[in-house]
Amino acid sequence: MSRFKSHMDAAMDEARAAAARGEVPVGAVLVSPSGEIIAAAGNRTRELNDPTAHAEVLVIREGCAQAGSERLPDHDLYVTLEPCPMCATAISAARIRRVYYGAADPKSGGVAHGPRIFTHPQCHHVPEVYDGIGADEAERILKDFFAARR
Amino acid sequence: MSRFKSHMDAAMDEARAAAARGEVPVGAVLVSPSGEIIAAAGNRTRELNDPTAHAEVLVIREGCAQAGSERLPDHDLYVTLEPCPMCATAISAARIRRVYYGAADPKSGGVAHGPRIFTHPQCHHVPEVYDGIGADEAERILKDFFAARR
Repeated sequence: MSRFKSHMDAAMDEARAAAARGEVPVGAVLVSPSGEIIAAAGNRTRELNDPTAHAEVLVIREGCAQAGSERLPDHDLYVTLEPCPMCATAISAARIRRVYYGAADPKSGGVAHGPRIFTHPQCHHVPEVYDGIGADEAERILKDFFAARR
Repeated sequence: MSRFKSHMDAAMDEARAAAARGEVPVGAVLVSPSGEIIAAAGNRTRELNDPTAHAEVLVIREGCAQAGSERLPDHDLYVTLEPCPMCATAISAARIRRVYYGAADPKSGGVAHGPRIFTHPQCHHVPEVYDGIGADEAERILKDFFAARR
């Protein structure tokens, strides 16, 4: 299995763990320049009563705390769903190198949809973006979660 | 002095305190439905090594923690500078009722500039927005800060 796939698999595990906690099942991992996962998280907005506690924000905050820096150059982020505009802007602020994401999010996404955060001159750092990585599995986790709650 | 002005004055005080800490001088306060300031913060991205620690995010996280909820309906937010796209999305996610801001931010703003977060159908809650409140003072605080660091 490629490193590529195994990092997204780790993000999927975080998404499934979020579902088990009753959180919208989105997971993310942050990968160091040497290729190691240094932070992993699923959404915790309900548990923490924090609308900013998306998986991406949690791994960025954890990675920055470890690095003792506001910026994480040469780090990559894997996330199961297209980041929302808040997370896309946080990714840019943290100077993340590459973003790999799974399912598209036409309803709330901010990378390929809606405000398309990385396309404006107000975006001071644009990461490389790779979409559709493990999209089917990421979508299945989300659909199962919302189907079970209906 | 109107309540209106005094809430923005409190945000200005937070911006000045941020400058004194070496942080980009932006301040925010969160106001409860009864008109009381329940959270106040300036930027702390450097101190906390957290690129998401903008004034707006800090007051939203504090207000939500107090409320025990991810959402703050009927709460208003005063901030000295036009929110960036991250903060604008967090404001929307928290269901803030009204946003009053000071100076425009053509370089990094996400409300009246760039991605204009509140204008897309992907934005599920659009607050009322009032701009230019105390803009001259907010701009002066920012200009003095950056002039002193040059």
